[in-house]
Amino acid sequence: MPTFTPFDFQMMSRAIKLAQRGQFTTAPNPNVGCVITQGETIVGEGYHFRAGQPHAEVHALRMAGERSQGATAYVTLEPCSHYGRTPPCAEGLINAGVAKVICAMQDPNPQVSGRGIQMLRDAGIEVQVGLLEQDAYALNPAFIKRMQTGMPFVQLKMAASLDGQTALANGRSQWITSAQARHDVQVYRAKAGAVLSTSQTVLADNASLTVRWAELPQGVQDTYAEQDLRQPVRVVLDRQQQLHQQLKLYAADGAVLRVAEQDAEVCVAVNKEGQLDLAQALSALAKQHNINHIWVEAGATVAKSLLQQQLVDELILYLAPKVMGSDGRGLFGALGLTDMQQVLDVKIQDCRMVGPDIRIVATPQLKDD
Amino acid sequence: MPTFTPFDFQMMSRAIKLAQRGQFTTAPNPNVGCVITQGETIVGEGYHFRAGQPHAEVHALRMAGERSQGATAYVTLEPCSHYGRTPPCAEGLINAGVAKVICAMQDPNPQVSGRGIQMLRDAGIEVQVGLLEQDAYALNPAFIKRMQTGMPFVQLKMAASLDGQTALANGRSQWITSAQARHDVQVYRAKAGAVLSTSQTVLADNASLTVRWAELPQGVQDTYAEQDLRQPVRVVLDRQQQLHQQLKLYAADGAVLRVAEQDAEVCVAVNKEGQLDLAQALSALAKQHNINHIWVEAGATVAKSLLQQQLVDELILYLAPKVMGSDGRGLFGALGLTDMQQVLDVKIQDCRMVGPDIRIVATPQLKDD
Repeated sequence: MPTFTPFDFQMMSRAIKLAQRGQFTTAPNPNVGCVITQGETIVGEGYHFRAGQPHAEVHALRMAGERSQGATAYVTLEPCSHYGRTPPCAEGLINAGVAKVICAMQDPNPQVSGRGIQMLRDAGIEVQVGLLEQDAYALNPAFIKRMQTGMPFVQLKMAASLDGQTALANGRSQWITSAQARHDVQVYRAKAGAVLSTSQTVLADNASLTVRWAELPQGVQDTYAEQDLRQPVRVVLDRQQQLHQQLKLYAADGAVLRVAEQDAEVCVAVNKEGQLDLAQALSALAKQHNINHIWVEAGATVAKSLLQQQLVDELILYLAPKVMGSDGRGLFGALGLTDMQQVLDVKIQDCRMVGPDIRIVATPQLKDD
Repeated sequence: MPTFTPFDFQMMSRAIKLAQRGQFTTAPNPNVGCVITQGETIVGEGYHFRAGQPHAEVHALRMAGERSQGATAYVTLEPCSHYGRTPPCAEGLINAGVAKVICAMQDPNPQVSGRGIQMLRDAGIEVQVGLLEQDAYALNPAFIKRMQTGMPFVQLKMAASLDGQTALANGRSQWITSAQARHDVQVYRAKAGAVLSTSQTVLADNASLTVRWAELPQGVQDTYAEQDLRQPVRVVLDRQQQLHQQLKLYAADGAVLRVAEQDAEVCVAVNKEGQLDLAQALSALAKQHNINHIWVEAGATVAKSLLQQQLVDELILYLAPKVMGSDGRGLFGALGLTDMQQVLDVKIQDCRMVGPDIRIVATPQLKDD
């Protein structure tokens, strides 16, 4: 195991904070930060801002200039070894004369993991791996999941009254949750690679499913300028081909991908219950459209299917301070359970107030069957 | 307005902390603490521990002895002026030669409020009122409510899955919440003057509804010795007279009050829906049985009635990390609402983890109709 100094921890922590600045913009690329030091002096630093633009290491090397000779580079992710839209960062570090590279984690893509490190070592550069590795993982859970499994990271958003109702029996529901909760939803949308919904939801509200910069909380606006706004891809389950060009959905900036059995951007099978194959759709979005992270805002039917098929990574549940009675519309519809052993277990990861509402973040627990 | 010194604040704060030590034992009496000082030296202090035993001032005066001459007494509640099981504390302070009395708040009973203060002033003692008044109110919300309104403070406990289900459609529910949540319930029971349930609930589980000292969390056990255990009165809605002496309910220590239309300890009317008049029952418990604080553990029907009749002061809702589906049994049953304006609004006062579960404390908001 490599040993790291307190200064090493400090620099990698700084690189991680830099990486976070790209959290709204880098998709489908990962968030990466880089700090370059000479002795205990920072001579360069940078982070990846947007796909197609330079990687973190390039920004940091440009800033360091001549002073990268013999320097140490702290990078939150293994430098890339391949020629993409930019030349490989490992090559950049070698050419700049860096003497030592410390990476927080290896590339999560099993097909290239370790190659960048090997390229550096082959050039005589000392490489250490694993400093603040957990924090580096936390920067890119969705990117890492897609690289390792070929499936996107799925967050399922739901909103209900304290007693679990999403609407009254007659369908009325505006507004269950507060403006603050709806603004919180905007932050989640802004971080996602795609927002997934259904044509039913889109048609009911003529929803655009976009990020509205003006509705982001002040703290987010302060670090995420309006001109940098990146719209997530909007994915709409449209089995009955109901979407049409007059909808607000199409008036707004950004791509729209329809999911249907045929004649759609994403074509998937329909199961015997007449539902689009959600696992196939998610897989296609990851593999064909490079989407790491999907934020789902749909109704009880899709929510139930995603949960039952164990396709949900995180449930984000907003509970409003209201009691609506059990004769309304429930969160996940009927599950037909007859034994407490069958209930879906989740783990509460976070629970806090968002304005007058409660926001619960929970991760479904896999069944051992 | 009187002005208080930092030392005054410090002493009253100490008196409030002392008062809290009686929180499990003083019912139906209030929690009261007292500190007596000479200059900036504490010469006596005490708190009320159990109804029928000496009041806080008596303990503090005994400890101070001769040094109460010319002393200042800090009391969290106006000293009493009446002869009850103990002589009036105002008289005790006068006889001990105390020079100044600072009270956090007046007696909440409008019929005696101010009398103790007047008795002290008539004896030439300087009296100031209002130091840390909010904290003093928070010591005894239930006692204060009963004194001011003649009704008890009602906490309604409910437990459900994240999606608001208390049981599966077939009634199965053990265990929705964790052992930690059940131990948390024991703390609430231990603080209450009465635990209210229904014969249906009692019969289903052969429930004793007692406080089980061994199940109190360590932190509570540390300040509340097993030999001091006070059992809340157990109140059971028993319209159909189903309780019988073979139940565990009757095997355990402590009083049991049945509520029924006749032949019961608490007799109330039955409304046209065939339900016991809950408002009448609560009023009788407050007025005839001196119960300040009622902890309700019942089913959806009672919960719904209490909420609809605006008889609930606090809703304590435990949500377990489970999804059960909307075809189970809902928290409050059908409310028949057709417009979002009709939903019952609550305000979230607290939301935190209790073991793996979430505990929400919410106060119903009065409707303006």
